[in-house]
Amino acid sequence: MSKSPDASRRSERSRRAILDAALALVGEVGYNKLTIEAIAARAGVGKQTIYRWWPSKAAVLLDASLALSGEAAEEGEWTFPDTGDLAADLKTVLRATVDQFLDERYEAPTRALTAAGATDPELGAQFTGQLLEPQLALYEVRLRTAVDGGLLPADTDLRLLVEMLVGPLTYRWLLRTAPLTHAHTDALVDAVLRGVGYVTTRPAAAGT
Amino acid sequence: MSKSPDASRRSERSRRAILDAALALVGEVGYNKLTIEAIAARAGVGKQTIYRWWPSKAAVLLDASLALSGEAAEEGEWTFPDTGDLAADLKTVLRATVDQFLDERYEAPTRALTAAGATDPELGAQFTGQLLEPQLALYEVRLRTAVDGGLLPADTDLRLLVEMLVGPLTYRWLLRTAPLTHAHTDALVDAVLRGVGYVTTRPAAAGT
Repeated sequence: MSKSPDASRRSERSRRAILDAALALVGEVGYNKLTIEAIAARAGVGKQTIYRWWPSKAAVLLDASLALSGEAAEEGEWTFPDTGDLAADLKTVLRATVDQFLDERYEAPTRALTAAGATDPELGAQFTGQLLEPQLALYEVRLRTAVDGGLLPADTDLRLLVEMLVGPLTYRWLLRTAPLTHAHTDALVDAVLRGVGYVTTRPAAAGT
Repeated sequence: MSKSPDASRRSERSRRAILDAALALVGEVGYNKLTIEAIAARAGVGKQTIYRWWPSKAAVLLDASLALSGEAAEEGEWTFPDTGDLAADLKTVLRATVDQFLDERYEAPTRALTAAGATDPELGAQFTGQLLEPQLALYEVRLRTAVDGGLLPADTDLRLLVEMLVGPLTYRWLLRTAPLTHAHTDALVDAVLRGVGYVTTRPAAAGT
């Protein structure tokens, strides 16, 4: 028997309240002290409601982060720009990533999931596969366009190139070795593109 | 009153046993489940012996990791090579880092400390300041030599350059986005050095 429209709305409201509670709590107490009980209390639902939909707190938090990045995508924040100027597009995206890392609402759950995944291979694989890889894939699509247009060498290692862009920023953020700034990521983009042989003007005959 | 030679030897033996126990246990159970009680039991000492020397399990583990990297330094593993060929020297060091990341003895405690520090700012500052920064400083000294020799532009941002080298490798290791290989870090070094304007032959007049 399918649920009535009212029951569906109530379900969706509960689901939303649970995800919001998980995001808020992980920022307040950290991943290790996060409990299903606390999420249920904050969301105003019973513990069993959570266990009916998710097997673990990690699964709740992963869905909460996916919902958060899904909202960002709907707001256009995660559409990868393609203005024809690769350097400018990468700077735009890395500046937005800096802004996210500096935004407590994104920063706390992302930090918690990254840390938890680093020492829990199963959770790490879910985090990387479901949250991170789709973002890296957006970079690769944009970079593939530049390769196809002859602006990057045909044999460019796209995965290496993406990690050269996001790796140093993630490192500085996670280990707090230096402040995150737009100037930092702009300089990073320029150095990386020089390093992989990016040509700023379209060649007469596109390389293959 | 100073301790007798026998007492000093016993202290050093206990200290060593405690650090070894901490390293072994963090690899087995992870940082979150690591306890002072378990370290004491494994080391064959009383809990109070540990609390006399260290305020917390984080402090024990940090000292254990420092001892481990101190041993590596004594074995010559962490002396930064200077053969005159910067690219070759960086490849040597990053290959050694890959080997460390693939060595369970180093990998487990480093992963545990990185993850714990990511969500605990105080521990993170200790980890970064005491364990990580001294290693980054070795890179900077070597790169400074290249700048002074005119092989890198005088205005090179050394911190950015170091993070362009270690960031992508740390990212791939921590988030398990792709396998760690010497070929990967070799390609990384080549791309990064090209990107920051490294000249492979010494110019007639060194730039300032």
